[in-house]
Amino acid sequence: MNINFLTEQLRQFARERDWERYHTPKNLAMAMSVEMAELVEHFQWLTPDESVAVQDDPAKLTAVGEEMADIVLYLVRMADVMGVDLEQAALRKIGLNAIKYPPFPQQAKA
Amino acid sequence: MNINFLTEQLRQFARERDWERYHTPKNLAMAMSVEMAELVEHFQWLTPDESVAVQDDPAKLTAVGEEMADIVLYLVRMADVMGVDLEQAALRKIGLNAIKYPPFPQQAKA
Amino acid sequence: MNINFLTEQLRQFARERDWERYHTPKNLAMAMSVEMAELVEHFQWLTPDESVAVQDDPAKLTAVGEEMADIVLYLVRMADVMGVDLEQAALRKIGLNAIKYPPFPQQAKA
Amino acid sequence: MNINFLTEQLRQFARERDWERYHTPKNLAMAMSVEMAELVEHFQWLTPDESVAVQDDPAKLTAVGEEMADIVLYLVRMADVMGVDLEQAALRKIGLNAIKYPPFPQQAKA
Repeated sequence: MNINFLTEQLRQFARERDWERYHTPKNLAMAMSVEMAELVEHFQWLTPDESVAVQDDPAKLTAVGEEMADIVLYLVRMADVMGVDLEQAALRKIGLNAIKYPPFPQQAKA
Repeated sequence: MNINFLTEQLRQFARERDWERYHTPKNLAMAMSVEMAELVEHFQWLTPDESVAVQDDPAKLTAVGEEMADIVLYLVRMADVMGVDLEQAALRKIGLNAIKYPPFPQQAKA
Repeated sequence: MNINFLTEQLRQFARERDWERYHTPKNLAMAMSVEMAELVEHFQWLTPDESVAVQDDPAKLTAVGEEMADIVLYLVRMADVMGVDLEQAALRKIGLNAIKYPPFPQQAKA
Repeated sequence: MNINFLTEQLRQFARERDWERYHTPKNLAMAMSVEMAELVEHFQWLTPDESVAVQDDPAKLTAVGEEMADIVLYLVRMADVMGVDLEQAALRKIGLNAIKYPPFPQQAKA
């Protein structure tokens, strides 16, 4: 994913609408959490199996992908505003998770 | 951001812990929303200016980056499980947003 | 607040729509979190002062009250489904909070 | 539920800790959403049936009740700060929901 391109697009988007003053980390976190809930909403009444089956329904999958995209865009914007390197943070977190949640012994041996 | 690499790492991570059965879209959306709230928590009592100043505090910025990373990882995992192309979805959403929120006339002229 | 009356109304509401099967604690928690985000949405781009001023705008205050009501209704429904006494839990939590966050010394003296 | 008593307790709690300045509607909505996620967290990896069974585990039920209580307390505090009558709003919303979601015909006939 070309984060630099997305970052530049979102910078320009905010600038052209005079939205930069709204884009404090506090506001971006709030707005991202609202988008997150729009993603959750698609699944709230579904059984686990029904939630798996969403991927077989092109219209629903597109709608879900759009909500995921909203989160991506806010993450990229917030990372830009705060000076966070999302990829480095993600790679670092995978390492931290591997320490926090060791694999099962039998799998570690395999 | 190398989504393919992150995807492969997260696949292996889930497989080695026998967590694949938990990773339904419904559960992943819920878990991602919990991580989102951990990001929000950093900003809940801050003034807008204080939220901007978080980036000048290396320890806090690392903590915030870690919460953002958790969201990235769940997005990547959920996109893998559901067959969503995150980058395509993000680019498409930028286009949709540009239609939904036209820039101010004077900026459009510029 | 007459919790018993609200509880009975919501029971009947679910029964008449054959929604009881959807009302697992997991689903109710998800749905409540979506309503919560609709409340958050009203405030996401406001300054702290603007958020205070919402109460002076009758139309906005009604809308905000409606989102708060949605959360109340899901809390009452979830408490009924799980057998939680909301008032006892709230009173108990005030006590726990008083221990967790002692008041400032000068205030304790006053 | 004695909302007036809870309201008074929470007013005093905020006053004694000099927290009133933090209790803008914006901040209270954010903080409530964080508590909401702590409730969701209990259920994120559970199957629907496992989420139903939580009520048979006294320790887990107490923990869940505590998260629900946190939400109740923030709702009561926010309603006080904004001048919202939670019970009136809840009753009004039940009426609105009955219009929005009519019961099934056969049930309406019953």
